[in-house]
Amino acid sequence: MHLTMNRFRVKEGQEHAFEALWRSRETKLPEVPGFVSFHLLRGPRRDGYVLYASHTFWESRAAFEAWTRSSAFREAHRDAGRHGDMYDGAPELEVFDSVQHIAATAG
Amino acid sequence: MHLTMNRFRVKEGQEHAFEALWRSRETKLPEVPGFVSFHLLRGPRRDGYVLYASHTFWESRAAFEAWTRSSAFREAHRDAGRHGDMYDGAPELEVFDSVQHIAATAG
Repeated sequence: MHLTMNRFRVKEGQEHAFEALWRSRETKLPEVPGFVSFHLLRGPRRDGYVLYASHTFWESRAAFEAWTRSSAFREAHRDAGRHGDMYDGAPELEVFDSVQHIAATAG
Repeated sequence: MHLTMNRFRVKEGQEHAFEALWRSRETKLPEVPGFVSFHLLRGPRRDGYVLYASHTFWESRAAFEAWTRSSAFREAHRDAGRHGDMYDGAPELEVFDSVQHIAATAG
């Protein structure tokens, strides 16, 4: 399993606008090969900003990389440069591979 | 859904020892009420260290907090102060709440 996490420092007062922007997007992710699940996560409040993260699980790194070369990706990121005033700095992409997995006991 | 992520900066050369430490642990997590899933994640290599994260989904923040007050938690963290020489600094805990979820289309 492969995780891509893009970390956004959203300026205080911009939280609702930021969340609304994500919720209003049409997405083709559910049909993308190798896509597993997406969460938009709200994290800690820090000095003047709230940490958010887009959090996407993929079956493999190859599936993620194939998506970044697709027209669906270009479409999804067409407006990525807009709304820059919402942020305290540029987003930071972190990618992870799972090396151990523990699931809940069924039932 | 609630995510707790503990971020570890593991010194270069200590990656195998760190992963082995996690794999060798007995865990009671699968039976903990409200526990959803755990991943140990290997992230980017940076200046002298590799970023790892323990990544645990819970049904709710209350489920996570109840676990931190349990004897299973104390047991799991009994040796947390050992192996300090593996790390470049203290781990950083970040907690997140999911504000949007998108799942893959079934099939």
